[in-house]
Formats: sequence, structure tokens, C-alpha cells
Amino acid sequence: MKFATLRSSPDLPTFVALVDEHTQRYWPLSDLIPDFSGDMTQLVQVWGSLKHQVVPKGDGQPLDTVRVEAPIHPHRNMFCVGKNYFEHAAEFSNSGFDSSTNADDVVPKFPIIFTKAYSTLIANGDEILRHAAVTEQLDYEAEFAIIIGKGGRGISKDQAFDHVWGYTVANDVTARDLQKNHKQWHLAKSLDGLCPMGPWITTADEIDPTDASIKCWVNGELRQDSNIGQLIFDIPTLIETISAGIELKPGDVIITGTPVGVGIGFDPPKFLQTGDVVRVEVEGMGALENRVGQ
Amino acid sequence: MKFATLRSSPDLPTFVALVDEHTQRYWPLSDLIPDFSGDMTQLVQVWGSLKHQVVPKGDGQPLDTVRVEAPIHPHRNMFCVGKNYFEHAAEFSNSGFDSSTNADDVVPKFPIIFTKAYSTLIANGDEILRHAAVTEQLDYEAEFAIIIGKGGRGISKDQAFDHVWGYTVANDVTARDLQKNHKQWHLAKSLDGLCPMGPWITTADEIDPTDASIKCWVNGELRQDSNIGQLIFDIPTLIETISAGIELKPGDVIITGTPVGVGIGFDPPKFLQTGDVVRVEVEGMGALENRVGQ
Repeated sequence: MKFATLRSSPDLPTFVALVDEHTQRYWPLSDLIPDFSGDMTQLVQVWGSLKHQVVPKGDGQPLDTVRVEAPIHPHRNMFCVGKNYFEHAAEFSNSGFDSSTNADDVVPKFPIIFTKAYSTLIANGDEILRHAAVTEQLDYEAEFAIIIGKGGRGISKDQAFDHVWGYTVANDVTARDLQKNHKQWHLAKSLDGLCPMGPWITTADEIDPTDASIKCWVNGELRQDSNIGQLIFDIPTLIETISAGIELKPGDVIITGTPVGVGIGFDPPKFLQTGDVVRVEVEGMGALENRVGQ
Repeated sequence: MKFATLRSSPDLPTFVALVDEHTQRYWPLSDLIPDFSGDMTQLVQVWGSLKHQVVPKGDGQPLDTVRVEAPIHPHRNMFCVGKNYFEHAAEFSNSGFDSSTNADDVVPKFPIIFTKAYSTLIANGDEILRHAAVTEQLDYEAEFAIIIGKGGRGISKDQAFDHVWGYTVANDVTARDLQKNHKQWHLAKSLDGLCPMGPWITTADEIDPTDASIKCWVNGELRQDSNIGQLIFDIPTLIETISAGIELKPGDVIITGTPVGVGIGFDPPKFLQTGDVVRVEVEGMGALENRVGQ
């Protein structure tokens, strides 16, 4: 199943809806489950007891009459993973922009975890802020994100998938000059509006996380073309690593890293400019398309 | 003025109170301002219109009858600053635990910004989780934190202090092995319970941020003894840097970095062990004392 956060008009609150990607129709969850009026995080929290009630009734309503928002508003910064595909790890280390590591650890021995603030979140179709006064080197990163369902601390690898509620698509837009200059990556990754996410969350049962294509186009040019099964640190390893000392909560988001083909992988680098359109697509999760604004 | 987040008993909600440090008495804010029932973040948001009503009435109540909680629950991860005192920058680089930088930038040219999740927050007197299964190298870091009042993006240095509502004391407890291994510092800094904060927030008018002593004792031994006026990147620079591309919001927290004298500054290093008591004191802001638990 796919769930989106929708809004009928700017002055009305958002609501969660079941979405049919093929017919492009939606069913407000409160129509299917009369006693549910929560947001996506609340849906995740009560999923175990409600999921059997989520059955579409009638024909639904057309998606093009509502605004699709970023699918979830995390209760804390999103966990993000750096250098988590082999070829990207090499491309980043060779680019000169990786100030976080030495020449002898091009491929990380342990997952590299940083965060992106929720203030970075924008929806499919929203404009990516250009931040021209802050950065001259804006870059895209096609990624997929894990939405945590059941929380917990000390989750072992073999239990990890029991804690995954769903998946979505993300673009971990990054200001490369800030990433290089400030050593720790938070600023470079957390400028307002640098995280397109969505368009919806696909429940875990519909995705094979060991084999799904991940692609990114800029202005129609295919730049990234890989498979999410190629992660250096796979989903069970990421969940075990993060949860070892941090209690994961329902609705936590883990953005898993980008494959080879980002802008700094080219010589000369291909940074994003105003007007560029970035499209990220992950097989089974949908596509996310955003234009770079002024 | 000093404001604390208090709780009368475990099954009752927290409330914000005006505190007199010297008499150790408190006045619930809802007694002073009948139409206010919010938490600390809400107090910050409405401060401009309410501050003139904050006048203690009567003798107040004794602080030792209530539990003092962490003073604020930030709405996103706390911004933290690395290597922000000269001698600490040298001690950290010399320790072998700093995998974030090269030998030629012992002193950072730009502020190093990372985050700590709210799940790290504990109150004065709470036990610091030892996390023995995750780390063998737990370390203390005496710091002071800025509480943002008026939000904004693109705040210039000369306007920065208009956005500071208050200050508090923090201990940026760090798992050094994780900090070294994972390159980006989030995991090492965000294990549950690794951020003692408080005991209260002191409003900005009572603090001279260019001259206040900051000290840390472990089991009564003075380990850190510096002055917050010694920051490499001062408060206006931090606020200008972070807000350049990130809109600061009322209640955001910036933890400003630690001076020389952390455990890895000693040879051999002095890591925290179960039973150790860490006391951090910043002149005018109060003292924070926490024992390391099992």
C-alpha cells in the first residue's frame, strides 16, 4: 500500500490518504477508519491494530485535485548515511570535497551517520531553494529512505526488517562547498528546503530492498543509475548500528546514501543551477521531481 | 531571570516556573500569568508580550519538593559546535581521535556544526547512561548552550544578540571510539541520555557572554577551567553562520563547544566510568551534576 500526506487547499490541514499510483486516486484514511484522524507518524504508531481496516471503498478521488505534501514530518532530524555505495565512495574521495576522511579509508569501515533537519523537507514538485548567497556548489543525491515502524533500542540485524514500516524516495541535496569547509556535514545538508521527499510512502511488503533500481536525471540526462541492493551497509546493518545506543521511534527516518553519479563525480563538476529539474526514481517507490528555484 | 521546567510527581505533566537560585524557591508561571500554560518553547515564543508580567508574587515554593527536568524540549536536534576553543582544538587533534580533519587544520577555519538529538537530554541529577555495550570511551565536555528567542534566517552578526533569549549549561557527553570510527559525529554524540542540560535557563540580560568562567570537575578533580569569552567562533558568528541558510526558530538550541581538559586530553586518556560524578558549572548559569550509571 501507498500512503501520502495531502492537502485540499492551503488554509486546510493536511490529511493522510491511501493512494493508488496507477489510477492516480486517493482515499482519505479517516473515510476508511472512522476513528483515525492522525498524521503519518500517528498512522505508523497504530499500524499494527489498524492495518486490516485499510481497504479502499468506492472509486476514491483524483490526486490531481489536491496538493501532495512531504509524506512525513519526523519528530527529530532525519538520520542520513554517507558514502554507502562503493563507486560513490570512490567518486567522493577523488573529488576533493571529502574533508571527513583520509586517503586510506575511501570505503568506510563503519557507517557514516549525520542528520538533516526537518526544515529541509519539501514535497514532490516544490522548488529546491538555490541558496545563492550561501553556496555556489549545490549538488543532488538520489537516495531511498526507510520509515521506522516499531521502535526499539538494541535491534539486531535479524530483527531489523520487523522495524521497517515503509520506504520513500529522497533527494539529499548538498552544498558541496559547505560540506568541505565545515568538516561536519550538518550545515551543508540542512539548508532550508534541501530535502525533496515522497511522493508517498510505500509499505515494506511491496519493496524488495535487495533489488530495486535507483535513478536520477538532471534535465532529462541520466546521471545516477544503480540498484539499492548495492548498499555497502545494508538496512539491517544500519538499523543495528543506529539503534545500538539510540532508541528508534515510530516515524523515524533513515536516508540511506547515494550511488555514483553526483555532480562532483564529473570533471568539471556539474553543479545545480536555477531552472535545473532533478528527477529521482526508485523502483516501486515512485518518482520525485523538483526544479531548482532562484 | 531564571526559568526551569519542573514536575511535581512522575504522573503529572511538567510546568514552567520562575526560579530564585539563591532562595531555592520557585513560582509556577501559570500563577504569575493566568493565561499561560505552555512549555518552555511556548514561553520563548510569547516572551516579548509576556515578560513584563513575570513578577514573583509571595514567597514561592521550595525547589526541593519538585523534580527539575531538562529545561527545554527542542523541536529538532540541537545544533552543536566542534573544536571551538583553541587549546581544545589542539588537544583533540593531538589525541588521535579526530578523524574529521587533516593535520593542517588543527584550528578550524569555519565553524564545525553537528547535531545531538533531543533523546540525549537528561536533567541535572539524572544518571548518564554508560552504554557499555556500545562504547569503551565515554568522555565529558563542559559547554554552555544558547536558547534562541526570536527566529530568523540571514541574521547578521550585529543583530545576533537580539535573537538570544537565554543560556544554560550542557555536558556534551561523547563516545570517543564512535566519534573516531564513524567519521561524522552524530552517533557518538547522540546515544540516549548523553546530554545533561540545565538546571535552568538564565535570560540573556543576566549573562556577559564575553566573560564567564566555565569549569568541569570529575569526582571533585578540576579538569576544565576556562572562560566562555575564549570561543574561537563567538555567538554572533555562530548565529550568522547557522542562520545563513537555516531559519532559526524560537527554542532552537546551539551548544557552543568545549574548552581544553576533556578525558582524551590526558595521557593516558581519562574516560568516564560507572560511578563517576561530572559537575559542569558556568558562571551565572548554574551547575549541572550527573553521575555515570551502569
